Amino acid sequence: MYSVTVRDHVMIAHSFRGEVFGPAQRLHGATYVVDAEFRRRDLDADGVVVDIGRATDVLRRILADLNFRNLDDVPAFAGCNTTTEFLARVVFDRLVAAIGRGELGPGARAIEHVRVTLHESHVASASFDGPVASS
Amino acid sequence: MYSVTVRDHVMIAHSFRGEVFGPAQRLHGATYVVDAEFRRRDLDADGVVVDIGRATDVLRRILADLNFRNLDDVPAFAGCNTTTEFLARVVFDRLVAAIGRGELGPGARAIEHVRVTLHESHVASASFDGPVASS
Amino acid sequence: MYSVTVRDHVMIAHSFRGEVFGPAQRLHGATYVVDAEFRRRDLDADGVVVDIGRATDVLRRILADLNFRNLDDVPAFAGCNTTTEFLARVVFDRLVAAIGRGELGPGARAIEHVRVTLHESHVASASFDGPVASS
Amino acid sequence: MYSVTVRDHVMIAHSFRGEVFGPAQRLHGATYVVDAEFRRRDLDADGVVVDIGRATDVLRRILADLNFRNLDDVPAFAGCNTTTEFLARVVFDRLVAAIGRGELGPGARAIEHVRVTLHESHVASASFDGPVASS
Amino acid sequence: MYSVTVRDHVMIAHSFRGEVFGPAQRLHGATYVVDAEFRRRDLDADGVVVDIGRATDVLRRILADLNFRNLDDVPAFAGCNTTTEFLARVVFDRLVAAIGRGELGPGARAIEHVRVTLHESHVASASFDGPVASS
Amino acid sequence: MYSVTVRDHVMIAHSFRGEVFGPAQRLHGATYVVDAEFRRRDLDADGVVVDIGRATDVLRRILADLNFRNLDDVPAFAGCNTTTEFLARVVFDRLVAAIGRGELGPGARAIEHVRVTLHESHVASASFDGPVASS
Repeated sequence: MYSVTVRDHVMIAHSFRGEVFGPAQRLHGATYVVDAEFRRRDLDADGVVVDIGRATDVLRRILADLNFRNLDDVPAFAGCNTTTEFLARVVFDRLVAAIGRGELGPGARAIEHVRVTLHESHVASASFDGPVASS
Repeated sequence: MYSVTVRDHVMIAHSFRGEVFGPAQRLHGATYVVDAEFRRRDLDADGVVVDIGRATDVLRRILADLNFRNLDDVPAFAGCNTTTEFLARVVFDRLVAAIGRGELGPGARAIEHVRVTLHESHVASASFDGPVASS
Repeated sequence: MYSVTVRDHVMIAHSFRGEVFGPAQRLHGATYVVDAEFRRRDLDADGVVVDIGRATDVLRRILADLNFRNLDDVPAFAGCNTTTEFLARVVFDRLVAAIGRGELGPGARAIEHVRVTLHESHVASASFDGPVASS
Repeated sequence: MYSVTVRDHVMIAHSFRGEVFGPAQRLHGATYVVDAEFRRRDLDADGVVVDIGRATDVLRRILADLNFRNLDDVPAFAGCNTTTEFLARVVFDRLVAAIGRGELGPGARAIEHVRVTLHESHVASASFDGPVASS
Repeated sequence: MYSVTVRDHVMIAHSFRGEVFGPAQRLHGATYVVDAEFRRRDLDADGVVVDIGRATDVLRRILADLNFRNLDDVPAFAGCNTTTEFLARVVFDRLVAAIGRGELGPGARAIEHVRVTLHESHVASASFDGPVASS
Repeated sequence: MYSVTVRDHVMIAHSFRGEVFGPAQRLHGATYVVDAEFRRRDLDADGVVVDIGRATDVLRRILADLNFRNLDDVPAFAGCNTTTEFLARVVFDRLVAAIGRGELGPGARAIEHVRVTLHESHVASASFDGPVASS
């Protein structure tokens, strides 16, 4: 399998509900350095998995929708703990939808698998990965 | 699949037996920067794969048992070359046992797959990964 | 000159006042990966700049006071933009005060210069550095 | 599964054909930081996946054949866009061939899976991975 | 002193003249991951060394002028070996000129010192640094 | 000032004397990832601070003398705690001596300042830096 990975970042505020989170129940924040990996069996006619420029643009647009926000106030996340793993899934779902709409280019519809990793510090990260079709 | 990865490190001395190791047959040492990745299909009720604080504490405890030691003198490793890949398996086995004993929390028993990577330098690393049940 | 650097991190929420900040005027947050560097001319009798364990503990304690907080609500920062460079100075001042109180060990009073760097993402960081005496 | 990963780099010039590449259609270049990962079910009698020294040497030799070259002038790549993902496959194929010829040692023939990742910058990488037998 | 550092990258082709360069006398290329550090004594009225967004934009514009080019064909570099250290100086000079023209904002004219580092691989980098006035 | 930095690593065993070291008084070990930075005012006739290939070779040779050793058994270090900062000085002194003997090339005698940093883990490092003449 071939893959291409692009990186960007997002800076958000949020709080968690549940005793397990300890002091992270308070309003705090995070920088997430986000890696989006696209996998497919064969390269397209240009010899790429996906145009890196386009992939970078789409990832940036998806993150811009979250960037510099307090996620506690985002209606789509009401009632959810916006943990690193939860947000990895959010970015995954939006990337897969963008692939389906052709925003990564027509050839990118052959992408079979996506993995999104959010690094929340130098010592912790979370990811979500899955097939494109099943999401 | 969702995953969470936490990082810590350990500093040990050891030597290897076998001509293939060349000068590494002499007593020397290594810092291993250790990544432990936990994977599962669904998030728990709090929205996490595993509590990062607990995962970090358990990894630290497992590494503390090896830290600042000459592994040539550890009875459990007698007759073994404590290579990076061998030690990745040791940490994997101990993490899986800790999951089984509930030390990462009751919800963490749903973790399906663990991967342990030991970075021995900026240019070399080794890992062991496998399902939780089969180990 | 000799130096020793230790690393930890902190996760906070805040907002900025001033048009220059654009969308960062909204409540958002950041992970800061923090490097604290201690410099001195000569090593102490044990052969160190500062005990790395003690330096790590003191840095952790200073960061714990900020960690998992909304800095907009911290009285000490009222009226200030808690930018990355501002926070680098805050950590610097607190480290220098800790050195003065002997919390890094009696030998650490010979530290002449401190540099604190906060990495806010993989593409941006800020720092404050200066002599210990002048702060 | 056990794995071992070694890292090296290569510096090349090339150009791409196809409007999708925009300014990358001009002659330009790249440093690729290359990670080669070798996976197998069991360790050999010495307790390793592959001798790290040998793996490093073989990777260096394969990269030396590309290093400091204009890939547009390499006959083997005539008519191909030497994209990062394409080159990941080239290195993969040559590593698998080297395993087959015994250049990573006789025990290394038990390697089941190889993954080659080329980092073209701090924000983009590509890889190719597959079973050793099927390539 | 306070400092702020921003990062971007550029991908170029070039060749070197001089036997000392060995195979690097051939046409090859490099990715340079570029760090630009700005230092000053005091923060401005907004509490910053320089607006990170503006600094990032100016660095990107300066690198865009070099990006995806064969530096052997750039008239400004005729007769020069475009080594990593030479290019660090080129980026430094252009950043200092941009500061002088007010492109980093009027407050940024208080920047006293700039350092530009180009990472050409995971094992080698070069930099140029100096006072803003003297350049 | 111009600078060039090259990186390599070394793997050693050692123990420390002194209660301040706690469990590090036991025989243990470390991987040190070593950065050697060379600084000078002007580039040489080839446009470099120092030939990167030569600098890399000299650093490797200096580290080879320490690599895969128990530093407790090295006569030159008898009675010394071979701390990270102490070893940074050792590598510094040997690099400066190599410059003086012309091993980095005749032009490299113009190097004015050297900094050696040893990264002992992802969270701790130490360095020694100084002018070439004064050492």
